[in-house]
Amino acid sequence: MIIDCHGHYTTAPAAHTRWREEQLAAVGEGRPAPAYPLIGDDEIVESIESNQLRLARERGIDLTVFSPRASAMGHHEGGLEASVAWSRACNDLVARVAGLFPDAFVPACQLPQAAGEPLDAAIAELRRCVETMGFVALNLDPDPSGGHWTSPPLTDPHWFGLYEAMCELDVPAMVHVSASDNPAFHATGAHYLNADTTAFMQLLQGDLFARFPTLRLVIPHGGGAVPYHWGRYRGLADMLGQPPLETHLMRNVFFDTCVYHQPGIDLLLSVVDVDNVLFGSEMVGAVRGIDPRTGHHFDDTRRYVEASALDEAGRRQVFEENVRRVYPRLGAP
Amino acid sequence: MIIDCHGHYTTAPAAHTRWREEQLAAVGEGRPAPAYPLIGDDEIVESIESNQLRLARERGIDLTVFSPRASAMGHHEGGLEASVAWSRACNDLVARVAGLFPDAFVPACQLPQAAGEPLDAAIAELRRCVETMGFVALNLDPDPSGGHWTSPPLTDPHWFGLYEAMCELDVPAMVHVSASDNPAFHATGAHYLNADTTAFMQLLQGDLFARFPTLRLVIPHGGGAVPYHWGRYRGLADMLGQPPLETHLMRNVFFDTCVYHQPGIDLLLSVVDVDNVLFGSEMVGAVRGIDPRTGHHFDDTRRYVEASALDEAGRRQVFEENVRRVYPRLGAP
Repeated sequence: MIIDCHGHYTTAPAAHTRWREEQLAAVGEGRPAPAYPLIGDDEIVESIESNQLRLARERGIDLTVFSPRASAMGHHEGGLEASVAWSRACNDLVARVAGLFPDAFVPACQLPQAAGEPLDAAIAELRRCVETMGFVALNLDPDPSGGHWTSPPLTDPHWFGLYEAMCELDVPAMVHVSASDNPAFHATGAHYLNADTTAFMQLLQGDLFARFPTLRLVIPHGGGAVPYHWGRYRGLADMLGQPPLETHLMRNVFFDTCVYHQPGIDLLLSVVDVDNVLFGSEMVGAVRGIDPRTGHHFDDTRRYVEASALDEAGRRQVFEENVRRVYPRLGAP
Repeated sequence: MIIDCHGHYTTAPAAHTRWREEQLAAVGEGRPAPAYPLIGDDEIVESIESNQLRLARERGIDLTVFSPRASAMGHHEGGLEASVAWSRACNDLVARVAGLFPDAFVPACQLPQAAGEPLDAAIAELRRCVETMGFVALNLDPDPSGGHWTSPPLTDPHWFGLYEAMCELDVPAMVHVSASDNPAFHATGAHYLNADTTAFMQLLQGDLFARFPTLRLVIPHGGGAVPYHWGRYRGLADMLGQPPLETHLMRNVFFDTCVYHQPGIDLLLSVVDVDNVLFGSEMVGAVRGIDPRTGHHFDDTRRYVEASALDEAGRRQVFEENVRRVYPRLGAP
């Protein structure tokens, strides 16, 4: 069985996306947002069957942890109150996807966040999603400012209430930023990878998992720059007087396989213990084209894992067992 | 012959570093900075012979392009006027190193920069260094705010005057940030690599080398996250309607070998054309310890290049020929 831990609803019905635009316009003008539109099941089915489900079937992916479109979380836009309403709408929509395709999609939530705001609303939305709608994970934005990086590091007590809820609910977070509000950073070409790298280094500098030994964080996009610079991080841990990465971080930190070429996946699997690698593709996401060198989609990451040096047991770990271990609410096979 | 394109004077005499502290204190209090201290040649000789030169001899590195300590450029501190005086002091000091060890070190300059300020002072300092002191290159800070990323992308006309001077003088720039003023970013563990990744993506989005076909930019630390995600960048170029990376960027963009483990160097050399890889170590820099797995310094990058799959001709390119081509003021062998 193959479980993709990193899918987003990037093809949501136009009415959903349009409502967000109308909501932000309303916030800007100080008036109430319009009512959220009625969206028929048929529209949802069509948007999924012709995109993610079609590709998942073609690629032999059985189950996808499916969350709202990351770039549309837009935590830098509209303030916390708007983010609460938008997050509920987005999470309700992915819950409907999971309800319509219960064998293919399991929902993960986005959180209402805004730079400088406390996390009470985020915790409440997480509880609503997990306790009442069967969500199995969340996306945590370490930079709700959208590229200005005004929030404290992930090791700061600012985040602890959320971590407590995560531990209690036994759900992992994927550390995933949203769109870039900073012209210096292209979203998927710089901001995403920078955030992955930044998060890992914040964790390396701190001692978060001594306080939260069961907390689990998935750093997407193959861990940003980290595996490529694994020697740098091992050396920095040493210079900073921290324990080795294996004991300091790698019981709690996991990387997905959203690395879109064979040499990258080979590097990831050669430097990071197989226990810490979870299959992911982020398909119909950042890079949607076909690689002219292979004739296959860049984001068809199953091919790279299959062609890697992993043995059968290792592939089973990456494709299924590790994902189930990190996302226990997926249940047993 | 082996030329290291990435060395910094990280062991400058204490009086030099102390003067910077005094200068910033004076700026803060609105009084003139004290006079720059007298520093004897013996102090400089000692600081080099016991550190960079000793290690270079042990490792068989013949020549190093040597610039002021990157993390101490501190473009976010003190304003432009202080940066002018500090940059002159730093550049004069590396010029003295090169004068004392002309067979081992060739100078590259830091620039006086400050966020929101024009580049006239930077261009004047570049001209002073190259035209009157024999410098062969410069370090260009794409984020003089120190991690707030308030400057326009490297493709913006803001930078064009500097590029014109670089082309006229035929000197390359290493795109290198300084210390982080943002608690989200550890300097060498996040900010450096993020800047490398960010710079590459800015260049990918733009069309800078159509306007400056002879401009050459070296992206250090193995290109940040870029080679590890080479498939993502090839795919993004396609999605953004840009030409392939090879023709769009790789006639003008080069990566050094500051990647501190064998799998990272192997990946770099397997995905990036050998023409675009320049030997660098940044020794006595970000990661100074010894890797317990190898018994050698993490930053002893010659070993990784030697142990890679490169043939003899490829090694000659990386170790010497490419560096001379990108830094023509080094002269012929």
